[in-house]
Amino acid sequence: MSMKNQGVVVQDIARADAEVIKGLAECGVATVHEAQGRIGLLASYMRPIYAGASVAASAVTISAPPGDNWMIHVAVEQVKAGDILVLAPFSPSDAGYFGDLLATSVRARGGVGLVIDAGVRDIKTLTEMQFPVWSKAVCAQGTVKETLGSVNVPIVCAGELVNPGDVIVADDDGVCVVRREEAADVLKKARARLANEEAKRQRLAAGELGLDIYDMRQKLAAKGLKYV
Amino acid sequence: MSMKNQGVVVQDIARADAEVIKGLAECGVATVHEAQGRIGLLASYMRPIYAGASVAASAVTISAPPGDNWMIHVAVEQVKAGDILVLAPFSPSDAGYFGDLLATSVRARGGVGLVIDAGVRDIKTLTEMQFPVWSKAVCAQGTVKETLGSVNVPIVCAGELVNPGDVIVADDDGVCVVRREEAADVLKKARARLANEEAKRQRLAAGELGLDIYDMRQKLAAKGLKYV
Amino acid sequence: MSMKNQGVVVQDIARADAEVIKGLAECGVATVHEAQGRIGLLASYMRPIYAGASVAASAVTISAPPGDNWMIHVAVEQVKAGDILVLAPFSPSDAGYFGDLLATSVRARGGVGLVIDAGVRDIKTLTEMQFPVWSKAVCAQGTVKETLGSVNVPIVCAGELVNPGDVIVADDDGVCVVRREEAADVLKKARARLANEEAKRQRLAAGELGLDIYDMRQKLAAKGLKYV
Amino acid sequence: MSMKNQGVVVQDIARADAEVIKGLAECGVATVHEAQGRIGLLASYMRPIYAGASVAASAVTISAPPGDNWMIHVAVEQVKAGDILVLAPFSPSDAGYFGDLLATSVRARGGVGLVIDAGVRDIKTLTEMQFPVWSKAVCAQGTVKETLGSVNVPIVCAGELVNPGDVIVADDDGVCVVRREEAADVLKKARARLANEEAKRQRLAAGELGLDIYDMRQKLAAKGLKYV
Amino acid sequence: MSMKNQGVVVQDIARADAEVIKGLAECGVATVHEAQGRIGLLASYMRPIYAGASVAASAVTISAPPGDNWMIHVAVEQVKAGDILVLAPFSPSDAGYFGDLLATSVRARGGVGLVIDAGVRDIKTLTEMQFPVWSKAVCAQGTVKETLGSVNVPIVCAGELVNPGDVIVADDDGVCVVRREEAADVLKKARARLANEEAKRQRLAAGELGLDIYDMRQKLAAKGLKYV
Amino acid sequence: MSMKNQGVVVQDIARADAEVIKGLAECGVATVHEAQGRIGLLASYMRPIYAGASVAASAVTISAPPGDNWMIHVAVEQVKAGDILVLAPFSPSDAGYFGDLLATSVRARGGVGLVIDAGVRDIKTLTEMQFPVWSKAVCAQGTVKETLGSVNVPIVCAGELVNPGDVIVADDDGVCVVRREEAADVLKKARARLANEEAKRQRLAAGELGLDIYDMRQKLAAKGLKYV
Repeated sequence: MSMKNQGVVVQDIARADAEVIKGLAECGVATVHEAQGRIGLLASYMRPIYAGASVAASAVTISAPPGDNWMIHVAVEQVKAGDILVLAPFSPSDAGYFGDLLATSVRARGGVGLVIDAGVRDIKTLTEMQFPVWSKAVCAQGTVKETLGSVNVPIVCAGELVNPGDVIVADDDGVCVVRREEAADVLKKARARLANEEAKRQRLAAGELGLDIYDMRQKLAAKGLKYV
Repeated sequence: MSMKNQGVVVQDIARADAEVIKGLAECGVATVHEAQGRIGLLASYMRPIYAGASVAASAVTISAPPGDNWMIHVAVEQVKAGDILVLAPFSPSDAGYFGDLLATSVRARGGVGLVIDAGVRDIKTLTEMQFPVWSKAVCAQGTVKETLGSVNVPIVCAGELVNPGDVIVADDDGVCVVRREEAADVLKKARARLANEEAKRQRLAAGELGLDIYDMRQKLAAKGLKYV
Repeated sequence: MSMKNQGVVVQDIARADAEVIKGLAECGVATVHEAQGRIGLLASYMRPIYAGASVAASAVTISAPPGDNWMIHVAVEQVKAGDILVLAPFSPSDAGYFGDLLATSVRARGGVGLVIDAGVRDIKTLTEMQFPVWSKAVCAQGTVKETLGSVNVPIVCAGELVNPGDVIVADDDGVCVVRREEAADVLKKARARLANEEAKRQRLAAGELGLDIYDMRQKLAAKGLKYV
Repeated sequence: MSMKNQGVVVQDIARADAEVIKGLAECGVATVHEAQGRIGLLASYMRPIYAGASVAASAVTISAPPGDNWMIHVAVEQVKAGDILVLAPFSPSDAGYFGDLLATSVRARGGVGLVIDAGVRDIKTLTEMQFPVWSKAVCAQGTVKETLGSVNVPIVCAGELVNPGDVIVADDDGVCVVRREEAADVLKKARARLANEEAKRQRLAAGELGLDIYDMRQKLAAKGLKYV
Repeated sequence: MSMKNQGVVVQDIARADAEVIKGLAECGVATVHEAQGRIGLLASYMRPIYAGASVAASAVTISAPPGDNWMIHVAVEQVKAGDILVLAPFSPSDAGYFGDLLATSVRARGGVGLVIDAGVRDIKTLTEMQFPVWSKAVCAQGTVKETLGSVNVPIVCAGELVNPGDVIVADDDGVCVVRREEAADVLKKARARLANEEAKRQRLAAGELGLDIYDMRQKLAAKGLKYV
Repeated sequence: MSMKNQGVVVQDIARADAEVIKGLAECGVATVHEAQGRIGLLASYMRPIYAGASVAASAVTISAPPGDNWMIHVAVEQVKAGDILVLAPFSPSDAGYFGDLLATSVRARGGVGLVIDAGVRDIKTLTEMQFPVWSKAVCAQGTVKETLGSVNVPIVCAGELVNPGDVIVADDDGVCVVRREEAADVLKKARARLANEEAKRQRLAAGELGLDIYDMRQKLAAKGLKYV
């Protein structure tokens, strides 16, 4: 749901550093989510329309009426290379706000995807285009163009606050938002985590147990775990 | 849910013209839905069991008891080449009414798929057979053969009225029903829409904005949209 | 939900015969479920993270707190070749209890998969590893390691009782549990069913009707079915 | 969902006999539903906003856009004494289409309630007014007045076809629709059922078993029921 | 879901001591659930049909087909004074298995209520009778009498194992099952808990903080809680 | 979900003027929501535990782990007269975080209620106390006290951003949040709306139509509405 009066388009938003965004894409959702202290995850009903997509991008946010996709057209003009649209309806809607024509337009502006707490359609063509979308529903239901919303205002999308310019990381595990101003720091932590994980993976693959690697046996015993 | 007393099989139903049906298949769900005035879409929880299937076919309707698939056997005998089974239970059920044996039988009669507001099973084999199913659930739960339903009566399937002989259009975006007697007219409108879309696509791909192509700026301003 | 006081690890559990388990894997979920009298099916919201996986394995059960995956580490030590982890939280949770590191560890012990009435993450890597998971959700949400649960106690997972050592059969149709002591008998019935189905398939493919093959016409007429 | 092109108000609809409607109200939803052969029940998510209301009335149907209640104002003019509004949105919506002002207007025209496959608000005042509403949701979310729908066209409401002038029976058990032309016949059957039930009730209250009253023991034994 | 072959009625089941059952009723669901180690709670979608009912009773269990209430008639004969029916369908169903006639019959046998992982109807009369029901749904949908189930076998109801003769505690907070053989011990712990709570209540009502009463400040500080 | 690192208690928060808050309570949720431009409504699954409660109060926010109610004890110390607790878990949970003991403590501090995007228990006692709670679930499931969250940080509760000190308006229609700094202005608009509504109500009660009062006929005709 939206948190601002409707009818506003903010044209000038700050974005995170492109190298930082690229780095976050390589880390993936689960690692980034952990690295920033287990916050920022959108609701797990947000699913990709095809498997294998993995992006990080700057959010161009859209607050839109239920069943009305007018503001997406407004938002496309605000898209710069490396941006992703993030849409939250004022109230719940499964309608199909977005299809292959809009994707063509977004891509022509340099945009790289869509996160939408509502429906999407033209799935087959979007998949062929390899234009990634994370959505609540796949639904062909058409929308109208009657009521204003806003572009580039803070929104709550799938249970999480997203500010314009925040970094969206999305892959097969879901969608995570990273505050723009914390992105560089989160990347540093995420990379440290990945390095640490790689070492762990090799020990686990060799048959060592997490119980030993993470030194859990004593703590479990202290809590009262009994082997019978 | 059903709208007629149970225990009736209507054997002689009218179907739309085969060329019209073929044409609707080429247009796809989203276009057909728009072309007929944004009506006829089944609920978005109806999902295909595998990606990429796309059909249009004449509905052989089944009104069936919850957890009882007896009437599918009755319906198969009514299937002609180019038909699709459309099943709605009297009351909600996720049971697995349909599997690869029934699909084999439907295909042997010339049938091309199934739309079911309930469950389906043998997904792997159905996928190998490329026998498309749109369903509410994938569920192995077996069914009984105890209670009558009806075949080829009007049903409400996933929130939409389906008459026997109506045209079902189904693809990755979901399922849409077109009234038999309106099918030719809808096809005409759908093709016009596609032609129009192709021109739009090229302009959008070239970087033109929907705001300009659809001449929206003035209307947005009139509604009070503010750029800041 | 759990049915025992927490904090217990049962180390010595009986398992079904390896040949029987292998046989059940070949039969698949729908056939096994029917063969044992249409029982044992977990709720249909349990879905595989990728299509095509098909396993049968001995259950190592985990009763775990919501949002706390500590006991998975404990359970991994109990895994023997041919085992599958089966986790039920005390109360509903969609959190991502399990990812690629734990999968690496389970595989190193000879384990073959996971059934979890909660969330899983690192989907892309798990798919690349071809490590099958059946879950209620895909969710990157991290978990804590604070509270004890139990390993190898009877649990209710997705609506079905699972005892340690029971045989889990899982494929694209869902997940079915077979009691360890009934596994050999169920296999016999499942194989008989498959043999019978193959004969039916050929007749159906040749255009014969289920109405005739299963001799249904008289019974339908007796129930009052009318052809009009 | 709607089944007609939008933008039409049908002003002259037939209604069932007032005495028949009154009789159906006295029978209640469960009895009427059974009397007409277990059909006509709307989805069970349709719940009354307060307990104890029980009505039968002629349907004035509304096909409305999601989140847009304009057509309710249009429909109120069509309400005659003894009518009930029945609204289905084109696509799913939980918005609060209806509140105490509209209820005041409906009542002033002689209308007796609302059935809405969407949301309602001003629950407290509606309860004080004893104006009954059966809805999918209670939700204060405001609606717009931008897009046309239709009044007095056939609609599918909560999974069931409702024609204008059909009789709606609604109480604490839910909502049932009776075809206008079948209403008198259904009433006759419902009354017979009630008379029969009263005799059964007295025998059951005296301790007789349904097993004996309905003569079930032999049929159960024939099916193979075993007492151990 | 059921865990036994169908078609069996177990006539002779053990029940807990009547005084113990009475004591558990006085403690209520939340206290009993905590007293037995936070286990035994049925899923929270199980809601009472009216507020204020509070019972404890011995479970007479029913494993029933979806949409088929035949076995309830069989079960009523097995009801003794102080029993409660507990029904789980083989696969999910919202149908209205139970109404006022069956309630009259159950009450005539001394039964005190129903817990059903499906639907119930005749809510108004059941409320007037003060016959308590905890259910997943209120639904007038009628059921058939065609297929066998079982009575007094272990069942999984709303996610929890219930054995015949287990004690069911149910009130406005939901439904909890206590193993028959543990009932006396759980009662002892529940009463101790209540006594302890009463003292706490008075201190809290006087304005003391849980932080101090439960001595939490140090532990919170140790975990790193910061006041700013 | 939370938007800050955990483990922080903000002790000094600003609150809106007490007279303004009182005024908002008198206006109710639907009117306040409209008055501030149809924003601020929490998801409609947030329902009161009993009918008739109506409050406006200053939010003391709680960001809590799933199934862990430790931070409520911390938050109670921060409650001042006229405050309401507003809790959002990090990830979805239905557990029963709150019962009559905590309510006793909150009330002793002058607190007036709870809004919780999770479960609550001891419903019967809370109702007797007339301590209002709006929640996602009623659930007796106990919680632990193991992991830190935060108090008085911005949270997203049921899809809406809530800052500490924002005004919560809640009644039978649901829950609405008003920004602290906008509260006086929203009250002014809400009162104007109420005054306007009263005049409308009298005209509607006298039989005038909204079509005429709101001057809709011309606009409907312009959109193409046809009377047949």
